[in-house]
Amino acid sequence: MESIQPIGLVRGGRTEAYEDGWGPVTSVIELDPAVLDETATRGLDDYSHVEVVFVFDRATRTCRATQHPRGNTRWPKTGILAQRAPNRPNHLGVTVCPLEAVDGLRLTVRGLDALDGTPVLDVKPYLPEFAPRGEIRVPRWSSELMARYF
Amino acid sequence: MESIQPIGLVRGGRTEAYEDGWGPVTSVIELDPAVLDETATRGLDDYSHVEVVFVFDRATRTCRATQHPRGNTRWPKTGILAQRAPNRPNHLGVTVCPLEAVDGLRLTVRGLDALDGTPVLDVKPYLPEFAPRGEIRVPRWSSELMARYF
Repeated sequence: MESIQPIGLVRGGRTEAYEDGWGPVTSVIELDPAVLDETATRGLDDYSHVEVVFVFDRATRTCRATQHPRGNTRWPKTGILAQRAPNRPNHLGVTVCPLEAVDGLRLTVRGLDALDGTPVLDVKPYLPEFAPRGEIRVPRWSSELMARYF
Repeated sequence: MESIQPIGLVRGGRTEAYEDGWGPVTSVIELDPAVLDETATRGLDDYSHVEVVFVFDRATRTCRATQHPRGNTRWPKTGILAQRAPNRPNHLGVTVCPLEAVDGLRLTVRGLDALDGTPVLDVKPYLPEFAPRGEIRVPRWSSELMARYF
């Protein structure tokens, strides 16, 4: 497998790992001109949302067993692939964000749950055809955890 | 940045890069017991859908300029970050799939648009709070392209 490298960095937004309230946070994805031509974002402003793939680079450990989400013992011990915690294998995050502005290789986004300096691996346009097909079911604890996330 | 490695492989599904009709395709994500403990998927069957991050490993080139999506000249020349084509930087794919079954480290999914043997980098539960916030807007060409994709 070819090695995976950042195509840019998150600038602005938060500098510490607050858990909730990401919805109104605005940040800029600064794409790297050494990796991408200026034309890489051509047409992106036709979309309202982007899907950002990034690295939780402040996650230092990787969970190898089950854990209580956020350490909250009211919530069940859960496998790392059954939660979206950063301390997962490969420390990858994926979030869909409203795209506020496109200025060449600078993308202004809202509600990106990534800290200042976070490496970005991909930006994709959000297409409604990629939404979940069929009814969505989740455990109750995840709805409790997410209640104030965005 | 720590090196990113597969946590498993896609088995079954298709062996060639057909562009459309992925919706009914069933495949199995075989997670690697050398990377993940058997408990990694504990609680995953409480969710109806998973979000799979994978590598388009059959994509050999990377688009460095604009391109007509699928080479279709009726559609505009578009930057690689304004389309979801595989020949993108880092060749990453992200798709939300109905989760049909969880059997230890074997996950049966439906509609995963990844070929047999595709490396998988992450599996996340799909949470409705990660759906796009606000109205969705896309260019007309992308709706035409996606009409028969799933």
